[in-house]
Amino acid sequence: MMLEIQHRDGLARICNFETAHGTVETPALLPVINPNKLIVTPKELEDEFGAQIIITNSYVIKQSDELRKKALKDGLHALLDYHGPIMTDSGTFQAYVYGSVDTSPEEILKFQKDIGSDIITILDRFTEPEDSKELVEEKVRDTLKRAEDAVDEYGGSDIHLSLPIQGSTFTELRKEAGEAISKLDAKAVYPIGGVVPLMEDYRFKELAEVIIASKKGLGPKGPVHLFGAGHPMIFSLAVLLGCDMFDSSSYIKYARRGDFMFPTGTVKLEHLYSLACDCPACKDHSVEDIEGMDEDSRTRLIAKHNLGQMFLEIRNIKQAIQGGSLWELVERRCRSHPQLYEVFKVLKEKWRFLEPFEPRSRKSALMYTGAESLNRPAVKRVQRWIMEEYEPLFDGPTFLFDVDENEKPYNRHLRFEISEIFRRCSANLLLSTPIGPVPLELDEIYPIAQSIFPRGSKNEGLVDEYLEKKGIDDVLVWEGIKTLRSVEDGGGANLDVMRIKTVADYQFGKGAGEVLTDGQLRFVKNRKGRVKNVMLDDDHILSVRHYDGFFTLKKAGALILKEHFSPPSLRLKVNDDSAEFNRKGRNVFSKFVLDADDDLRPGDEVLVVDKNNRLAAVGRMFLTIKEMMEFDTGLAVRIREGIEK
Amino acid sequence: MMLEIQHRDGLARICNFETAHGTVETPALLPVINPNKLIVTPKELEDEFGAQIIITNSYVIKQSDELRKKALKDGLHALLDYHGPIMTDSGTFQAYVYGSVDTSPEEILKFQKDIGSDIITILDRFTEPEDSKELVEEKVRDTLKRAEDAVDEYGGSDIHLSLPIQGSTFTELRKEAGEAISKLDAKAVYPIGGVVPLMEDYRFKELAEVIIASKKGLGPKGPVHLFGAGHPMIFSLAVLLGCDMFDSSSYIKYARRGDFMFPTGTVKLEHLYSLACDCPACKDHSVEDIEGMDEDSRTRLIAKHNLGQMFLEIRNIKQAIQGGSLWELVERRCRSHPQLYEVFKVLKEKWRFLEPFEPRSRKSALMYTGAESLNRPAVKRVQRWIMEEYEPLFDGPTFLFDVDENEKPYNRHLRFEISEIFRRCSANLLLSTPIGPVPLELDEIYPIAQSIFPRGSKNEGLVDEYLEKKGIDDVLVWEGIKTLRSVEDGGGANLDVMRIKTVADYQFGKGAGEVLTDGQLRFVKNRKGRVKNVMLDDDHILSVRHYDGFFTLKKAGALILKEHFSPPSLRLKVNDDSAEFNRKGRNVFSKFVLDADDDLRPGDEVLVVDKNNRLAAVGRMFLTIKEMMEFDTGLAVRIREGIEK
Repeated sequence: MMLEIQHRDGLARICNFETAHGTVETPALLPVINPNKLIVTPKELEDEFGAQIIITNSYVIKQSDELRKKALKDGLHALLDYHGPIMTDSGTFQAYVYGSVDTSPEEILKFQKDIGSDIITILDRFTEPEDSKELVEEKVRDTLKRAEDAVDEYGGSDIHLSLPIQGSTFTELRKEAGEAISKLDAKAVYPIGGVVPLMEDYRFKELAEVIIASKKGLGPKGPVHLFGAGHPMIFSLAVLLGCDMFDSSSYIKYARRGDFMFPTGTVKLEHLYSLACDCPACKDHSVEDIEGMDEDSRTRLIAKHNLGQMFLEIRNIKQAIQGGSLWELVERRCRSHPQLYEVFKVLKEKWRFLEPFEPRSRKSALMYTGAESLNRPAVKRVQRWIMEEYEPLFDGPTFLFDVDENEKPYNRHLRFEISEIFRRCSANLLLSTPIGPVPLELDEIYPIAQSIFPRGSKNEGLVDEYLEKKGIDDVLVWEGIKTLRSVEDGGGANLDVMRIKTVADYQFGKGAGEVLTDGQLRFVKNRKGRVKNVMLDDDHILSVRHYDGFFTLKKAGALILKEHFSPPSLRLKVNDDSAEFNRKGRNVFSKFVLDADDDLRPGDEVLVVDKNNRLAAVGRMFLTIKEMMEFDTGLAVRIREGIEK
Repeated sequence: MMLEIQHRDGLARICNFETAHGTVETPALLPVINPNKLIVTPKELEDEFGAQIIITNSYVIKQSDELRKKALKDGLHALLDYHGPIMTDSGTFQAYVYGSVDTSPEEILKFQKDIGSDIITILDRFTEPEDSKELVEEKVRDTLKRAEDAVDEYGGSDIHLSLPIQGSTFTELRKEAGEAISKLDAKAVYPIGGVVPLMEDYRFKELAEVIIASKKGLGPKGPVHLFGAGHPMIFSLAVLLGCDMFDSSSYIKYARRGDFMFPTGTVKLEHLYSLACDCPACKDHSVEDIEGMDEDSRTRLIAKHNLGQMFLEIRNIKQAIQGGSLWELVERRCRSHPQLYEVFKVLKEKWRFLEPFEPRSRKSALMYTGAESLNRPAVKRVQRWIMEEYEPLFDGPTFLFDVDENEKPYNRHLRFEISEIFRRCSANLLLSTPIGPVPLELDEIYPIAQSIFPRGSKNEGLVDEYLEKKGIDDVLVWEGIKTLRSVEDGGGANLDVMRIKTVADYQFGKGAGEVLTDGQLRFVKNRKGRVKNVMLDDDHILSVRHYDGFFTLKKAGALILKEHFSPPSLRLKVNDDSAEFNRKGRNVFSKFVLDADDDLRPGDEVLVVDKNNRLAAVGRMFLTIKEMMEFDTGLAVRIREGIEK
């Protein structure tokens, strides 16, 4: 599979997908071409919309004498007058709509190959939401059998196979189907099939569950195609859950009914009063113009408008992936329809599935869009760690500060209070923030500092839960300097040291903070007094990343962590050829990775070791370990510092 | 003031605003033209963006020898090469930025008139958020004095005066300023001034409070101009709160900094990866192209992009006003930034200010976008009525049904249960819905049936409160037919009759249901068995509106209500000239309205009476009574049935 991740945000990714007719950048929209009736031509799709790939139906071509002959004689690309990659569908959807098709799995696959399709789809069995579990199991089995046969026949060739995941709304079956199909050895695209009825009925909650279950089974294999997904309203959600490709003939179907698609929903021509669209098709037309058109021109115009909105949304999504704002986009889109809103429930329930793909920080701030934002994996992870893993640093009292949004980063706002407290005692300082309780020493890490919440938002229930859980009885709610009255003398706590202890534990694992501060600590600070570099016994062990409060690991620090944590913790094991290169500071590529710590997240600091667990380099993860094991090409770890033997 | 409302939704309105140089459709964006440096020319604004009106700064023109001479000689329109309406600002903002200006209130006003501006702005005193209350009071007084002087000088002329409302964040002062200025007798535009610092600091909550306070003072006078509002992110909110015009030079200021505006926020060029924009300026350009441009070309391109996004959002808003979906649009936009999200708090607190403008129903369904949607006036009003005003119809037990979204309209889903209950007893049937408790007989009215909520959403706290409030002890939670076991025989309740009683009370006022059912009732039903017409003692009194469950009032029904309710209830009093026309079925126009019931809402059924309280016609309100009293032109009531003496 020729897929290479260029950019990522959680499960969402921008990839280069190579085909015999050119490279496609995913997420990609594949407009459906009806070879019998070209309402928008492939050439227009390419020139006006920048379409990089299209899809057509091989069964429709095969059933027409004229089209079949021409396709077999001149090839599919000549038939459609298109020179980029073409994917073909097999007739499965026709079998679903009409009950049966006049071809066999073998025949339609061979036909697709013979006409020169770039991606050929097996004749899978469409699982319907109404199907009994027994019937779905049978269809999934048949689909898998046909996939196996297809791989036997074409697996070794240069052709891409399209191997759909079926399973209706039975998530366990979807997962198993994904697992089974991902094990087949072929250059393949993995469509999630049988979802059109869910989308037509706005059953988006179940759609999200089906995508998640299929992705769980498939792993990072890709590209994953959401078959028949043709409304821009759901694209961002599907990408967030790991889909790479979309196709649909909906742009025409909607146009025939006079329906204008927007990423926020559909508007019927008769309910269109002011055309809020700058697309080339709509530009220079008023609603009255369009109403006055003959049916063919109107359908063509609306079809182009619909395509324009879909391609626009794909660009929007790419911007959001690279800008780190995909969650914000999805959360806004999920409010386009109350049934799409129901997906928030799924995102909340499935955060533990999403979390391993979630970077520990982003370069842009987390933006609150509503209470639903608190269920993002980025928030849940740090909340969980504070509630379950964090141990307060001191036996002394806990001071609770009611902080607000415009006081960020809180420690700088509380400089006076902190110094007064620490002059008198070594106490735990707890902040009551929008995401709940936060130990002061964590207050500069993502997303605690790098987030924007409405002023005055709080999560006091979680603060109470924290105090109970940690068995903290002596809470002193900060009410100004008088709060210190009862406190005994004997201070000396140092926020910089506290920060290393707690942030390192959160970032690298329990105990990291202890070993990284065990010795003579010295700080190199910038002009504003903020720590830049951390020296331990004169070795530079850590630098502080100014934009997210986490540490970059230096060689000396890496050696300490390697000593403390036993394999595979924090480690990525590479083969010896790679290790030699990595020692010289060169990056790690996927195909050389042997193994790694499951707890590492994209963006994490990592110890690159050779087969014998000798440190070869320190770097930053770009992929998850599962992705590295799956992909045979592309960057896995960006090396910062090679370590010679 | 030549302003005529064409379409409305709450305080939001689409109006025709007449000037000497043509009619402007509001909401309108007035791009700011810097006469010293035309980055985008007025001609381009008109041709490429459809700008109907522009604004420029008379003080800047006056300060330049060359511009002043040309403007005085050839006129402002020739100077700018623009033939549509031009509004001029006075130098107030310059006084704010630089401390003072080199002109007097009288001089700059006369200069604006002399160069032929269509709308001339007084030199008001800019109130800053940092100003003390005393200083703000002084500035408000000065501004009012200057407005009075301007009205004395130009009030009788054909020229439009622009009379700003100042008051900083002191809402009481804003309201008083609005009241005082609205009393001046002039053709005027009412800018809300001094808000740029709030917008620059994203203090949107205070901005919303300032707009509401100013509108409270101004009443329906208009057009209301939000001075310096130049980010599309806030346009829909401002329109929802009653603003009609926007202006800003921000499109250029942002462009100079490389900032791309979108209705969902701002993206810096260096954070732009994929240009999700179809506007004519961006079309055919990649991010790399734009980065490679020389500074002037880049600034011009981004300025045009920014203008494109602003005009696009204005069209979006017009679509939403006419489509009845402005609340949905605003609720999505308020999630563009957490500080814009804070406005939800204001919308919740101020629902009683918004409610009188709120139609009792819309043609499109209320769409839930999040918990915040439950604070809309459309929801609050019906909730309040059920909680405070509604009296259960029977002394018998109350059956509580836990209904869900896909069971709408609930009574049809519960047909069997209802008939079984009513066979045995006359009981109150209460539904537990997303908006709280709903008596079954209200279940077809807006927004109870005409709404879409996520499945499973509930408001059980309000159900408990209802039961307590109404003193209902004998609640039978419906658990199937067995729930009826303990119920005594003696049925006979009729849902159609119940519906008339309760809906009429809600729609027309307490007691309406009683008098409209006092006699021999007969129903004309459609093929599906739903009531179309209601006959009382053989008179057609009401028809049922299929799309929102409310009644249209027929002559016989109107006479019954007139008998029951004393003036001014349900009545709109017109002068005798109008009454004669209305008796013949012609519509009521604003200038003939003498008085009306304050409780009438736009869209309500109304009894049109003459000075002697004789019924002249039945119709439907288009404006609020305050608007009718204010506007001297335009439709006030659409007459359905004239009533001859």
